[in-house]
Amino acid sequence: MADQRFQSLPGFRDFTPRDCAIRNYLFTTWRQVAHRYGFTEYEAPIVEPTELYLKKTGGELTGQLFRFEDQGGRDITLRPELTASLARIVGANQRDFPKPLKWFQIGPCFRYEKPQKGRGREFIQFNADILGEASSSADAELISLAIDTMLALGFKEDDFVIRASDRESWLGFCSANQISDTAGFLPLIDRLEKIKPEILDKKLAEFGVTRELVDAFIANPENASAAFREIQDNLNARGLGQFLELDLTIVRGLAYYTGAVFEIFDKKKSMRAVAGGGRYDGLLSTLSDGAADLPATGFAMGDMVIRNFIEETPNAKMAMEAWMQRNPACDVYIVVADESKRPDTLRILSELRNAGIHSDFSMSQLNVGKQFKKAEQSGARLALVIGSEFPEMQLKTLLFRTEETIHPNTDLIESIKKHLDSPDGPLIA
Amino acid sequence: MADQRFQSLPGFRDFTPRDCAIRNYLFTTWRQVAHRYGFTEYEAPIVEPTELYLKKTGGELTGQLFRFEDQGGRDITLRPELTASLARIVGANQRDFPKPLKWFQIGPCFRYEKPQKGRGREFIQFNADILGEASSSADAELISLAIDTMLALGFKEDDFVIRASDRESWLGFCSANQISDTAGFLPLIDRLEKIKPEILDKKLAEFGVTRELVDAFIANPENASAAFREIQDNLNARGLGQFLELDLTIVRGLAYYTGAVFEIFDKKKSMRAVAGGGRYDGLLSTLSDGAADLPATGFAMGDMVIRNFIEETPNAKMAMEAWMQRNPACDVYIVVADESKRPDTLRILSELRNAGIHSDFSMSQLNVGKQFKKAEQSGARLALVIGSEFPEMQLKTLLFRTEETIHPNTDLIESIKKHLDSPDGPLIA
Repeated sequence: MADQRFQSLPGFRDFTPRDCAIRNYLFTTWRQVAHRYGFTEYEAPIVEPTELYLKKTGGELTGQLFRFEDQGGRDITLRPELTASLARIVGANQRDFPKPLKWFQIGPCFRYEKPQKGRGREFIQFNADILGEASSSADAELISLAIDTMLALGFKEDDFVIRASDRESWLGFCSANQISDTAGFLPLIDRLEKIKPEILDKKLAEFGVTRELVDAFIANPENASAAFREIQDNLNARGLGQFLELDLTIVRGLAYYTGAVFEIFDKKKSMRAVAGGGRYDGLLSTLSDGAADLPATGFAMGDMVIRNFIEETPNAKMAMEAWMQRNPACDVYIVVADESKRPDTLRILSELRNAGIHSDFSMSQLNVGKQFKKAEQSGARLALVIGSEFPEMQLKTLLFRTEETIHPNTDLIESIKKHLDSPDGPLIA
Repeated sequence: MADQRFQSLPGFRDFTPRDCAIRNYLFTTWRQVAHRYGFTEYEAPIVEPTELYLKKTGGELTGQLFRFEDQGGRDITLRPELTASLARIVGANQRDFPKPLKWFQIGPCFRYEKPQKGRGREFIQFNADILGEASSSADAELISLAIDTMLALGFKEDDFVIRASDRESWLGFCSANQISDTAGFLPLIDRLEKIKPEILDKKLAEFGVTRELVDAFIANPENASAAFREIQDNLNARGLGQFLELDLTIVRGLAYYTGAVFEIFDKKKSMRAVAGGGRYDGLLSTLSDGAADLPATGFAMGDMVIRNFIEETPNAKMAMEAWMQRNPACDVYIVVADESKRPDTLRILSELRNAGIHSDFSMSQLNVGKQFKKAEQSGARLALVIGSEFPEMQLKTLLFRTEETIHPNTDLIESIKKHLDSPDGPLIA
């Protein structure tokens, strides 16, 4: 049982080295894919004026805010999401940047919710947004980014699918069925599977439609919007069409979405959405008082759900473990077998580090056996033994226990790099 | 004049793409050097129970806390620094990790201070700590890390120096001069240059010593401690000795330091410390109620002061700009010269991105001239023109306007990579 005194606050996480490495794996992968797509990174303050979040249409998050007064009497809030900050920043600076903007961000967000599996009070989000491009080609670019993010994380076609729809389809349905309160109707579609059937029937009846009519609409692929078809064609041309599925039950919970919407689903647990996004053409204008009146489409992925999904999916888990083994804390551990050679050890250590090789050693005097134990604990693939015969040294592989003598005229750095690149170096090729 | 409505809170920063790239340059450099030294990364929550900070001996920061009550009535605080969290985490988990720990962390901290140049209410710190090694070899390892961090940022021997001392020296002075209130005396030494001479003389007199006696002590290198000499020898062996200077006026402001202390100084403005650290052997035990009774030495560098220093120092500024040019948002911009080839463009785009090449294009139809303008704005070195003669394509360098025909049997990826690696690729070699 963990000592209560040393616990973080409920819903907040400590990242000890392994957790931090997993976090960094997500950061690295998110950044690499976003860069491949020509997205540029931005960041916003962790704390914003509260009014920024009260403006957001719908106001779904206002009950979950970490909201305070600072020492100067300002009403401030730990950001619960990034779109409001993005609108503020773009409202202030948009003339500096050619459109469309393709911007991404990675950082913590905060919501006062009941902590549970996959949900914390502090979580990290990857946000990608395209601003200033109204056509479906931007939605396709964004969904393509989402798919390539999943592939880069090691997920395969059997593991996940993008279910997409378009609010336009439902606006057509509403119009055909004389439903004027679309803002009241769409959340019912979002919660079709979550509301008890008898209650759902009653609520649908209030809008003058039946469950049968709704189900028939959902089942008919003819109801896909023109934008959905364009997105499908676009993804087909990229060779990614097989990852997209029409699912008219996807409307997304938040009120501000206006067009194409999508979620990434775990194929094994088909009810679990691991990320999602969609088009929100009016929101930037609302949030920025008209200063940034740009059509927009965006996508967000949280670190907690995706980490769970990775750990439950063999393909993705293996990719993550392989990355971790390719990025150990230490490549070479130097064993000081003759304490009088410590000054030489320090010089060699500096040479290795200057060459970019992750190198460590025992700072205090230890017997050789204990130093080898530390070498193994460090995750290093190689031990470099410096003893009385220095400048001659021994380079040992810790996995296969092979040994090579480094002579005074040997290029030490090259010998080490050859080992680190060779099959006996990386534990997984 | 910026529109007030779109301003971040005072002391909080927006990181638009260039600012974010500079931040990422710092992150990347800090991580690379820490990894070379075999340090592993950890992270703590942004928010902690307030009591964690009230425990810290001295309590220097308690007036500057962003301190609040959450919805559950908890007294919580945005972290002003990392050592308290480190003690909490190590107190909870230390049995899981072999000693010594070499841990580093990069992330935001918060202090309610008057915003000014180099000081914000939200700033980013790089923290590196060695826990569980009492000998001066750990201080030397840490100072060496600090030096190599500066060198990796492009600073040279003419730009910076490490001034180091040891509180032991002053404890000797106090003992020789019958000063028992060392906690009252050391802050006077820390502020020697900042206190008015007549007030200083009066305060020193209260401890029974004169300014002359203090100055004579400082001027005499014989007063260097044994630990300082060991650190100097250690750095000499690493080839880094020239960066270290004895400066007995360095004692660091915070009360918890116990041994070797050091600051990195800007040589041009000799009064400006850009980072610092030192040994704090009792603090972890105090903070963790004895659960983590480990000797410790640590170092912190903030992003705001170091960024100013980089921008004022030609060597470092050039290194930063070179990094930015080696890491553009976009490597290849695809120009669609024949709109009927858009599906082919999407396929080629995916191929490039799958090969790790940062690639962008115009999502909507634009004339060729405008697409070339966008290519230049993107920072790309290459434009790939796809027109009616596809699968034949043209690869153009945007700087020198050279052109190369890509034939159907040419390896496109290889041609692009050759350009990106060749001298006409990177703008700075």
